[in-house]
Amino acid sequence: MPAPLEFYFDFSSPYAYIASECIEPLAARHGRAVRYRPTLLGAVFRISGQRPLTEIPVKGDYARRDFARSARFAGIPFAMPEPFPIGTVTAARACLVLQGADPAGADNFIHAAFRAYFAEGRNLSDPQVVHDVLARTGADADAVLEAAATAPVKDALKAAVDASLARGVFGTPFIFVDDEPFWGSDRLPQIDRWLSSGPF
Amino acid sequence: MPAPLEFYFDFSSPYAYIASECIEPLAARHGRAVRYRPTLLGAVFRISGQRPLTEIPVKGDYARRDFARSARFAGIPFAMPEPFPIGTVTAARACLVLQGADPAGADNFIHAAFRAYFAEGRNLSDPQVVHDVLARTGADADAVLEAAATAPVKDALKAAVDASLARGVFGTPFIFVDDEPFWGSDRLPQIDRWLSSGPF
Repeated sequence: MPAPLEFYFDFSSPYAYIASECIEPLAARHGRAVRYRPTLLGAVFRISGQRPLTEIPVKGDYARRDFARSARFAGIPFAMPEPFPIGTVTAARACLVLQGADPAGADNFIHAAFRAYFAEGRNLSDPQVVHDVLARTGADADAVLEAAATAPVKDALKAAVDASLARGVFGTPFIFVDDEPFWGSDRLPQIDRWLSSGPF
Repeated sequence: MPAPLEFYFDFSSPYAYIASECIEPLAARHGRAVRYRPTLLGAVFRISGQRPLTEIPVKGDYARRDFARSARFAGIPFAMPEPFPIGTVTAARACLVLQGADPAGADNFIHAAFRAYFAEGRNLSDPQVVHDVLARTGADADAVLEAAATAPVKDALKAAVDASLARGVFGTPFIFVDDEPFWGSDRLPQIDRWLSSGPF
């Protein structure tokens, strides 16, 4: 069985949302699974000296237009959320808790959380919204959030962020196919060819 | 006759090089021409607070890998040039001179100059290399470079850079289809759909 694709993401990344809606069917066509790896762009940007796209002079207006157009191009519902970007530490910790207990449930939560923020306009930085999304996907929301607030889970997320940095992740989505890195939802066509024809 | 696509570029941009090799056949399939508009990324980056991709911590190694892989994906010869990036003011001024005198010759020069830097490893910041490329494409290289050093041409390039900034160009390639902006060689599939099906 070939290794799963590794999909690094922050719940606040529009291009990670777009890619998250496409990556599983793409991987499945090539007999691959997807392993989702939450990280935090705030920490990543501090290291690499970057800022959120929408805060870069001149680039911000284009970025907002491109988020929406790229979602339409991919056939995915999208509404520019406000506020943007947001802190996603609660959602990321909840994700880690679920991944340890119920991997399939974790995947459902990831998609539901992305959609809540980028299609339904719900502020995912609010723990109550994370609670609602957990409950909606059938998780024991109280138990997950309680676990998410414990030191071992906080440490696990810190370790996950450090690991993503050590692997060279400077933005999301950042996808590894075996050890080949691909950054951005616009690299899905390259991933598709890499998986079908081998390294090029 | 529909308006030509407007293609803003800096000769030092690898993704502009990749797109320059693909944009004319794409445009022609939809009955469009391409109007090339040189700009200078140094000035653009100063305004938007950006740095060359290869100088951003963590991002630089990935960028070099992605330049080469994206060129292979597009089936285009590429060899990472050294030094990179380079100042392209002489090449950009020569381009403006040619565009005023011989538009078809200017297009030939643009392709030859991009290839000299990104496929043949010639340092396009060196006026002698610009001279060689001009001569190779059949231009009167001495006359073009002499004109390129005059105040009116220097002013015309300054005005062209200012105009690109005023239009929101913060990187290259930056392509306008009518008034719709597309940034990056990875947006060519979106441009293709925009031209075939209309705005989406």
